[in-house]
Amino acid sequence: MYSTNVVVKFGGIILIKYKTYKKDFDYSYTLGIFLTIELLNQKPESVIEVLLSSQTQNSTGVAKIIDICHAKNIPFEMNDKMISILSPKENCYAIGIFKKYDCSLDKLKNHIVLVNPGDSGNLGTIIRTALGFDINQLAIIRPGVDIFDPKSVRASMGALFNINFVYFDSFEDYQNNYLNHDIFTFMLNAKIKIHDIKPDLNKPFSLVFGNESSGLDPKFASVGTSVIIPHNQSIDSLNLSIATGIAIYEFTKKSFTV
Amino acid sequence: MYSTNVVVKFGGIILIKYKTYKKDFDYSYTLGIFLTIELLNQKPESVIEVLLSSQTQNSTGVAKIIDICHAKNIPFEMNDKMISILSPKENCYAIGIFKKYDCSLDKLKNHIVLVNPGDSGNLGTIIRTALGFDINQLAIIRPGVDIFDPKSVRASMGALFNINFVYFDSFEDYQNNYLNHDIFTFMLNAKIKIHDIKPDLNKPFSLVFGNESSGLDPKFASVGTSVIIPHNQSIDSLNLSIATGIAIYEFTKKSFTV
Repeated sequence: MYSTNVVVKFGGIILIKYKTYKKDFDYSYTLGIFLTIELLNQKPESVIEVLLSSQTQNSTGVAKIIDICHAKNIPFEMNDKMISILSPKENCYAIGIFKKYDCSLDKLKNHIVLVNPGDSGNLGTIIRTALGFDINQLAIIRPGVDIFDPKSVRASMGALFNINFVYFDSFEDYQNNYLNHDIFTFMLNAKIKIHDIKPDLNKPFSLVFGNESSGLDPKFASVGTSVIIPHNQSIDSLNLSIATGIAIYEFTKKSFTV
Repeated sequence: MYSTNVVVKFGGIILIKYKTYKKDFDYSYTLGIFLTIELLNQKPESVIEVLLSSQTQNSTGVAKIIDICHAKNIPFEMNDKMISILSPKENCYAIGIFKKYDCSLDKLKNHIVLVNPGDSGNLGTIIRTALGFDINQLAIIRPGVDIFDPKSVRASMGALFNINFVYFDSFEDYQNNYLNHDIFTFMLNAKIKIHDIKPDLNKPFSLVFGNESSGLDPKFASVGTSVIIPHNQSIDSLNLSIATGIAIYEFTKKSFTV
């Protein structure tokens, strides 16, 4: 039987104890059956263990998890107490525990660049939208919300496990690594409307968005092409995930017209 | 001094006691300075009273609230205890208490129709996006989330007070009232892509979206024109507020090209 601090054996060595998530952990969680299946399918090499609720032993989702764990040799166990500690929601029936991992960005593919994103819900929604429109490369300029926060993972509905992302200390750091990208900065005082952009199909693009409250610093007006999504004066600005969604849609729609 | 149940005098008559919000109340709240100013500016006739925190007597936001209350003859008072009871957030410095009100939809304007929306955050975000793109008429088909829930009000960032909305018991009820509208139903199995729609500029349109989890019932395929926002198979569907944002953007962008 386990106490509240569960000792985990990984490769025979006692590694960690699970606690409520904190940013400085080197592991994180998927909370729920759906997210755990996504994790197991996309990042099996990162999974430490799966915890299952004893209440749903007969559910098809749990059966699927157990099948994947068997096939990929991933440990799992029934552990109601640990689930109730790790999950703030009452109806959580599976938790995947995974080691955080690093990615790199593809120099030939289109990128989303989020400068100082502050909301894990927005971040997850943006990841999911981008993935749906074929953009699976994300740069985050620090300080930025933690992409491995279980709230980000949940908001992405598992799309996080299908994209590559890299954190950079500054936008210049990012830019110096991807000199071939056409950069578009989304700013409320830009003169060029998104409708009028004709992306150069021979170059990858980077769509750059600022923080939820403060947007992009005025210095970004001199970076690449500044673009506005025009709207009326009744609102100060669009929600970040909505603006990003519209921009991604508009920049990729040609690929979806065939 | 007040006890936890505050008796409110309105027109000299004792009307109500304030409690944590419930859907069946005939009043609701704006939580925070920004939302309360929006309420006072847009719906002053519905405001019962404003509660202010004693901690921010010198803030410009609170000064603005007091000015508006004086100008429009709206009662206000410092009441830290009541604020702490009504607001789940700690840093709430003003609460507007307002009577719920009815609206009607303009037969000549474009409409958004949400069938069984289930998330107050999505609802608020959709209201704000629609308002920004000149659509200020919203139909909600029951059952649907409560538009006056303080969470909806907050997510709309006050845009709620600038739109007209009506709840209908069924889509047929809605449709029978607005026979002149061109109806577009957003469905994952539709054949017509949103890029290819050329709205008839002589008729108002209705953009119809289903519930977050279940989408629109298949019967909607025979209502108006079914439209898809095409995306790849990596995701099951777009987030409702993202899909609605893209659709509103695409349907109204011509108005923003001048």
